[in-house]
Amino acid sequence: MNFPSILIENAVNEVSKLPGIGKKTALRLILHLLKKDEGATLSLTDALNKLRIEIKYCKNCHNISDDTICRICNSLSRDRSVICVVQDTRDVLAIENTHQFNGLYHVLGGIISPIEGVGPNDLNINSLIERLTAELTKEIILALPATMEGDTTAFYLTKKLRQQQDNIKISTIARGIPMGGELEFADEITLGRSIISRINYE
Amino acid sequence: MNFPSILIENAVNEVSKLPGIGKKTALRLILHLLKKDEGATLSLTDALNKLRIEIKYCKNCHNISDDTICRICNSLSRDRSVICVVQDTRDVLAIENTHQFNGLYHVLGGIISPIEGVGPNDLNINSLIERLTAELTKEIILALPATMEGDTTAFYLTKKLRQQQDNIKISTIARGIPMGGELEFADEITLGRSIISRINYE
Repeated sequence: MNFPSILIENAVNEVSKLPGIGKKTALRLILHLLKKDEGATLSLTDALNKLRIEIKYCKNCHNISDDTICRICNSLSRDRSVICVVQDTRDVLAIENTHQFNGLYHVLGGIISPIEGVGPNDLNINSLIERLTAELTKEIILALPATMEGDTTAFYLTKKLRQQQDNIKISTIARGIPMGGELEFADEITLGRSIISRINYE
Repeated sequence: MNFPSILIENAVNEVSKLPGIGKKTALRLILHLLKKDEGATLSLTDALNKLRIEIKYCKNCHNISDDTICRICNSLSRDRSVICVVQDTRDVLAIENTHQFNGLYHVLGGIISPIEGVGPNDLNINSLIERLTAELTKEIILALPATMEGDTTAFYLTKKLRQQQDNIKISTIARGIPMGGELEFADEITLGRSIISRINYE
């Protein structure tokens, strides 16, 4: 594209570096900001700068936090014997929104992915193992993506955790047909897994 | 959503004010910035701030520009007798990319839309009329959206321009079946218009 101004060109280039945003979308967003008054842009950029510079990560669970220990790790009402292991902050938010889990979290900061060059040492795994003894954890729930990478990470973690403490309960969130899902539209692997992991009516 | 940090919450709120970006997308973009180093965020926000504060609009055609008169209006190789009237800067870029037009532009800055409270006085119409005599314009091409608002604006402009100079040529870009379009999928109005505005083989 042949931009009428170098300022626009720079801004479009910067915005289109964001994931899922191409040059056309970037231009649309930028023209929107130009239509609004200066304050709108300044408060947007200020919020992003502050976030990037001042953000902290909880020393315990590695979730994003305003303090050195996050609200969940600090809470007295949470069950400290269960740790739910997730890939990133978004997963913590998603699980919190279900209101079905009252334990603690551990944010890995990614999953093992040889293609993207992410190995076990790039993830917050050692600190998870340290937590096992420090917090007298009874159960680890692995809430990882239902992908090859997620399964690899789950397999690796299970081995590591069992090495450390062989009587710990390790589970994974259920894989199966999503709510409202028709069987005929489910893929074979999901349907196959949902038969193997069938739930007994009691 | 229950955010783990007030910094994240503020940033998500600001980013989700952008058109077409909801809270989930905003969070995804923000977590992407957090994964990158500080420089990435700072150069993004710097580009946006600079753009918003330093941007100029061409005094002649109202297009976005680095100087008081834009590159197109300043160019010696453009045909100064034709003005293409468009809604905003994006349309200038789109038409420039076709390489089919070598005249000047005039950016209205919107179109007449009673629902959104945009009247003729909110648009750059008076300056267009002044350009007619100043630049000895021979033809005005209206390249406005094929919507009710676009047609209303075109009708209003035609009347105004004819009042000023009744021998000026006024045209609109063709409406019809887009390239690669199948007739059976075209809507009735488009198909109807394409029959009325049929092009004679010579």
